[in-house]
Amino acid sequence: MKKVAVIMGSDSDLPVVSKAFDVFKEFSIPFEVHVYSAHRTPVEAKAFSESAAENGFGAIIAAAGMAAHLAGAIAANTVLPVIGIPVKSASLDGLDALLSTVMMPSGIPVATVAIDGAKNAAYLAAQILAVEDSDLQRKLLFSRKAAAENVLKKDAEISAKYHL
Amino acid sequence: MKKVAVIMGSDSDLPVVSKAFDVFKEFSIPFEVHVYSAHRTPVEAKAFSESAAENGFGAIIAAAGMAAHLAGAIAANTVLPVIGIPVKSASLDGLDALLSTVMMPSGIPVATVAIDGAKNAAYLAAQILAVEDSDLQRKLLFSRKAAAENVLKKDAEISAKYHL
Amino acid sequence: MKKVAVIMGSDSDLPVVSKAFDVFKEFSIPFEVHVYSAHRTPVEAKAFSESAAENGFGAIIAAAGMAAHLAGAIAANTVLPVIGIPVKSASLDGLDALLSTVMMPSGIPVATVAIDGAKNAAYLAAQILAVEDSDLQRKLLFSRKAAAENVLKKDAEISAKYHL
Amino acid sequence: MKKVAVIMGSDSDLPVVSKAFDVFKEFSIPFEVHVYSAHRTPVEAKAFSESAAENGFGAIIAAAGMAAHLAGAIAANTVLPVIGIPVKSASLDGLDALLSTVMMPSGIPVATVAIDGAKNAAYLAAQILAVEDSDLQRKLLFSRKAAAENVLKKDAEISAKYHL
Amino acid sequence: MKKVAVIMGSDSDLPVVSKAFDVFKEFSIPFEVHVYSAHRTPVEAKAFSESAAENGFGAIIAAAGMAAHLAGAIAANTVLPVIGIPVKSASLDGLDALLSTVMMPSGIPVATVAIDGAKNAAYLAAQILAVEDSDLQRKLLFSRKAAAENVLKKDAEISAKYHL
Amino acid sequence: MKKVAVIMGSDSDLPVVSKAFDVFKEFSIPFEVHVYSAHRTPVEAKAFSESAAENGFGAIIAAAGMAAHLAGAIAANTVLPVIGIPVKSASLDGLDALLSTVMMPSGIPVATVAIDGAKNAAYLAAQILAVEDSDLQRKLLFSRKAAAENVLKKDAEISAKYHL
Amino acid sequence: MKKVAVIMGSDSDLPVVSKAFDVFKEFSIPFEVHVYSAHRTPVEAKAFSESAAENGFGAIIAAAGMAAHLAGAIAANTVLPVIGIPVKSASLDGLDALLSTVMMPSGIPVATVAIDGAKNAAYLAAQILAVEDSDLQRKLLFSRKAAAENVLKKDAEISAKYHL
Amino acid sequence: MKKVAVIMGSDSDLPVVSKAFDVFKEFSIPFEVHVYSAHRTPVEAKAFSESAAENGFGAIIAAAGMAAHLAGAIAANTVLPVIGIPVKSASLDGLDALLSTVMMPSGIPVATVAIDGAKNAAYLAAQILAVEDSDLQRKLLFSRKAAAENVLKKDAEISAKYHL
Repeated sequence: MKKVAVIMGSDSDLPVVSKAFDVFKEFSIPFEVHVYSAHRTPVEAKAFSESAAENGFGAIIAAAGMAAHLAGAIAANTVLPVIGIPVKSASLDGLDALLSTVMMPSGIPVATVAIDGAKNAAYLAAQILAVEDSDLQRKLLFSRKAAAENVLKKDAEISAKYHL
Repeated sequence: MKKVAVIMGSDSDLPVVSKAFDVFKEFSIPFEVHVYSAHRTPVEAKAFSESAAENGFGAIIAAAGMAAHLAGAIAANTVLPVIGIPVKSASLDGLDALLSTVMMPSGIPVATVAIDGAKNAAYLAAQILAVEDSDLQRKLLFSRKAAAENVLKKDAEISAKYHL
Repeated sequence: MKKVAVIMGSDSDLPVVSKAFDVFKEFSIPFEVHVYSAHRTPVEAKAFSESAAENGFGAIIAAAGMAAHLAGAIAANTVLPVIGIPVKSASLDGLDALLSTVMMPSGIPVATVAIDGAKNAAYLAAQILAVEDSDLQRKLLFSRKAAAENVLKKDAEISAKYHL
Repeated sequence: MKKVAVIMGSDSDLPVVSKAFDVFKEFSIPFEVHVYSAHRTPVEAKAFSESAAENGFGAIIAAAGMAAHLAGAIAANTVLPVIGIPVKSASLDGLDALLSTVMMPSGIPVATVAIDGAKNAAYLAAQILAVEDSDLQRKLLFSRKAAAENVLKKDAEISAKYHL
Repeated sequence: MKKVAVIMGSDSDLPVVSKAFDVFKEFSIPFEVHVYSAHRTPVEAKAFSESAAENGFGAIIAAAGMAAHLAGAIAANTVLPVIGIPVKSASLDGLDALLSTVMMPSGIPVATVAIDGAKNAAYLAAQILAVEDSDLQRKLLFSRKAAAENVLKKDAEISAKYHL
Repeated sequence: MKKVAVIMGSDSDLPVVSKAFDVFKEFSIPFEVHVYSAHRTPVEAKAFSESAAENGFGAIIAAAGMAAHLAGAIAANTVLPVIGIPVKSASLDGLDALLSTVMMPSGIPVATVAIDGAKNAAYLAAQILAVEDSDLQRKLLFSRKAAAENVLKKDAEISAKYHL
Repeated sequence: MKKVAVIMGSDSDLPVVSKAFDVFKEFSIPFEVHVYSAHRTPVEAKAFSESAAENGFGAIIAAAGMAAHLAGAIAANTVLPVIGIPVKSASLDGLDALLSTVMMPSGIPVATVAIDGAKNAAYLAAQILAVEDSDLQRKLLFSRKAAAENVLKKDAEISAKYHL
Repeated sequence: MKKVAVIMGSDSDLPVVSKAFDVFKEFSIPFEVHVYSAHRTPVEAKAFSESAAENGFGAIIAAAGMAAHLAGAIAANTVLPVIGIPVKSASLDGLDALLSTVMMPSGIPVATVAIDGAKNAAYLAAQILAVEDSDLQRKLLFSRKAAAENVLKKDAEISAKYHL
C-alpha cells in the first residue's frame, strides 16, 4: 500500500496533528511524519514534495496555522493529492489558516478539511488510497457502521433518560 | 479509468461548475454530471452516492451554495473521496457555503476547494485518480509545466514593458 | 397535545440542548430526545423525520455544530416546522453552525434561533403548538409576565443601589 | 384558516418580501401585509402585535435590514410564532440584519430564515399553520414532490448534455 | 445639571456597565440606573424613554448584548441623545451586539461606543452635558491632562528600563 | 445656536456626507464643512479640533473610510462630542471603517453611527444641541411624527394592495 | 540607488499593481516588474528572491490574491524587506488575501499594506530606500506637503460651498 | 547604526511588545521604547515622530489595540518606515486592530505585521536597517539558517517517533 505523509509547519502543531495517527493505525496505513516549514525550511519542503510520488507516497497531509502556506507550497511541487489542515492559533479563531489553505488559485488544489480537523484529513487520505483498494474501502465502510452504531447506542441511552 | 461524478445542488450552479468539464476533457477523464439537491431530492442524492463506487466512479464533486449541505450529504453515503465546491450566492460572498462545506464533523471528510473553485475541484479529482495511474500523473505534471511556461511568457512581456 | 422532538447531532451537544427540557416541563409539553447525526446515521435521521408527523410530533428541534446540516437534513424529510439550534464548537465561535443552519435554500426552511439558544428553541416550539391551543397560549403569556416581573424586581434592586 | 401577517420595516423591502405572497397564493393561505417600523412607528408595531392572535393571525413574518429589530420588537408583544427575514442592505452583505434578527435573548424567540429568504419565511408560516391542518400538510408535501420533480427534470437535461 | 440614565438589558450586564458609574462620580454628574429589557419589559422601557426629557435627563446610556435592540428601542421613544454599549456575550465576540446597536436606520440614531465600552459611554454623556456647561468642559479637559500625564509617567518608567 | 462642523477625510466622501446637510437645513442648524485628513493634514485637523469649542461649535461630525482615524484624531483634541461616520470603500464593505471608528480606547469616545450613516450623524448632532434647547427638541419630535406618518401612509397603500 | 522589484502572482493583477509604477517614476526610483507565481512557478520565484539582494534590489513588492502566498514565499528566500499587497478577487472582498499575507509566522515578516494598496506599497519601498538617502527623504517630505496642500485646496472649495 | 524606536499605545501592551527586544539584542541593534498614545498624548506622539529621523532612528515600530490609530498617527508625521503591530484585546480577536492598522489610505503606508507579531516587527526593522548594511544582512541570513536547523532537528525527532 502507498504511504501517507503528514507534514506539520511547526512541532507545536503536534497535539492537533497526532489525532490523525490513530486513524492510520486503525486501517494499517503506513505513514511518515515530518516537520517542514514553508517559510523556514522551504528547500526541504520542496525536496520532500517533489520526490514524494516516487518515494511511495499516495497522499500528503499538511497542517499549518496563521498565514498557512504549507499545504499550498507542497501542492505546488507534486501532483499527489495534498490535504490541508488549517490549525487554529492565538488569534482569529482559525479563520486566517482556513482561508490561507482553501482559497488556492486555479491549477494547484488543496483538499481542505475543517479547522484542526486532523482526523478527517486522515480519513480523507484513507478514502483516496481506497479508490483502487477494495479491501480498504470495505474497512472504511465497516468503520462507518461502527460509528453509526455508537451514535445509536448514545441515542438509546439519552432517549430513555430524557422525555415527558 | 474510473469516472468522476459532478453533482450540483441546482441547475443555477452550472456556469460555475462547467469550468470543471474542460479539465476532464483535457485529461480524457470520463465524467457524468447530475443535478441533485440535498434538500429537494435527498432520496436521489443518497441513491447515487451509495452506488457510486460500484458504478465505476472514483471521485465525486459536489457544488452548492448558501447552507451548502450537498457535499456532506453525499459524503455521508459513500467512502469515495468527495470534493466540495462552495458556490457564492447573493449574500455573504460565499462564506456561508465555504463554512457549510469545509467544517465537517469527525468521520465524514469533504475535500473542500476555493469558493467557485470548479477548475481546482476537477484537478483534485484528476490527482486522486492519478495516484494509481502513472500515465495520468505524467499528464498532470506536463500540464503544470505548460501553466508555468505561460506565467513565464507573461513575465517576459510585462518585465520588458514596465521598468525604470 | 402534539409532542416535540429534540434531536442532537452528537451526545456532546447534551449540555447545550438540555436547557430546552425545563421549558417543556414548565409547560407540560410532551417531548422526546434523540441522538441522530446527519452524516453518521443519515438513515435513522431520515426515517425519524419522515414519520414524525404521523407519530404525533408537532415540531422538531435539531441542534448541531460546525457544518451543521442536521436541521436541514431533517427539514428535507418532513413538512413539520423544524427549529435549528446552531451549536458553538471549538473554533469560529458558532458562526459556522449559524450559517450552515440558517442559510437554507428556497423550499426547505429551518426556523433558526440564536447560537446555543436551546431555551428559545423550546419556547418557539411551544409557541407553534400554542397557535391552536389557547390554553397553552395563556400559559406562555403568563410566563412572559413572570419574566417581566423578574426584570422589574432586578430594576428595583439595582436602581436603589446605584445612583448619584 | 388562520391568517399570516407580513410586516416590513420599510416599503423599500417590498421587492424582497413580495416573493412570499406567491407562496401564500399557491396554498390559499389568507395574508395581510403591513409597513411598520420598530423605530419610526413603535406604537403601531406594538398595537398590531398585541392584538394579532385575537385578530385571527396564526403567524407573523417580519422583514427588516441593518440593525433589524422589527422581528424582535414584534415577538416581544405576542406569543404567536414570529418569523424573521434579515434583509440585505447597502453594506455588510446582510450580516448585520442576520445577527440582529437571530441572536435573540432567552424568552423571546424569532424563527429566523436566510438573508432575503422571503419564500422560506412563507413556507415556514405555512408549515406552522399545517401542524393542525392535515389538508395543508398534504398540499405542502405535494409541493415538495413537484419541486423534486423539477430538479430531476433539470438533472435529466444536464446529465444528457454534459459527459465524457 | 441634567441627569444621565444608564439602562441595562439584563442585570447580568452590571459588571460591564458599572465602570460608567466611577466616571459620573468623578465629574459629580447625577445618574440613575435601571434594568429594562427591550423584549421582556418593552412597556417600561418605552415609558421611561418617553418621559426621560421631562424627568430631567440629558442623555441615556443603554447596554445590551446579542441582538442588542435596547438602545434602538429607547432611541425610538425620545429625542434625547441615546448612547449604546454593545455587550460581549458567550458567542460571536460582541460582533452581534455591535452591529445590532450601530447599524440603525435613518432617523433614529444611536451613538455607539466600543464593545463593553462603558467608561467611554459615560465620558460621551459627560461631553454631551458639557456642551452648554463650560465648568464641566474644563473638568473634562483637566481629566484628559491627567490621563496624558499618566501615560507620560509610564513612558518615563518604561523608556528608562528598556533600551540598548 | 451652536454650530456643527462636518469634517471629511477626503473630498471623495462628499456624496456620502452631503446627506447630512439637508437635515441641518431642515432644522436651521448652522454648520460648516471641511476637508481635513488625519494623515495628510494632521496639523490642520488638530488646530481645528482644539479651537472648535471656543469657535462656537457644539458638535463635530467626522467621516472617513478604510483605517478611519479621523473621528478619533479629532476626539483626541477636543471634549466636544465627536460623531463618527464610517464610510464604505472599495473592499471589506465598510467593516474596516466601522471598527476603526467605534472601537476607541478608554477616555476618548467617538459616537459612532451606521456605515455611510450621514443622515443619522446629523440627527444625532441635532439631538445633542437640543438637550438644552427645548425649541429644537420640539422640532425634532415633530419631524419624528412626520416620518411616522409617512410610514403609515405607505402601510395604507401596501396593505390595501397586497392581501388574500 | 538600489532597485525595487514588483512581483505579481498573475498578470491579471496588473491593473492593481501598475498604480505603484507612477510613484517610482515620481521619485526616479529604478524598478523592475515580474510575474512569478508562488504555486505555478515556485522555482523562478525562489531563484529571483535568493539573488535579489546581490542583484541590486533594496526592497521587493509582492501582490497576490486569494490564498496569497507570494509575498511569504519570497520573504522565505531573502532578508530584503518584502512588502505584500493583498489583492481583492471575486469573493470574500480581499479578506482571504489580507489574512494570507499579513499573518506570517515568527521569523519571516511581510510588510503588509491595505487591500489593493499598490500606491502605498511603492511609498513604503521608497521610504525604506530613503532611510540612508537623505535626498530621497527630502523628496518624500516634499510630496507629503504637496498632498497636504491638495487637501487644503479641496477644503477651501468645499467649505466655501457648503455651510449655513 | 541607526536606532529603532518601539512605541506602544499603552503600557498594558508591554508583554506583547517586549518580545521584540530580544531580537534587537540578538542583532545588537540599538533601540528605544516609549509609551505614547495617539489619543491621550497626541502632542508627544507627533513630536517624537517628526524628529525621529534627525534623532538617529531608522525605523519606528508602533503597537496598539482596538481602533489602533497609533501606527498611522506616527506615519503621518515622518517618512521613516513605520511598522504596525495590531494588538489583540478583549473582543473581536484582534480583527479591529488589524484593520485599523493595515487599511491606511493612499500616501501614508504602515508596514503591518501579524496580530501580536512583535518578533516579526523587530525582524522587519532589522531587515530595513540591513538594506545598506551587509554585515547585518549576513547576521540575518545566519539567524535564518539557525531557525531552519532547529526545524530540521524537530523533524528528526518527530519523524523518528511517529510512523507505521
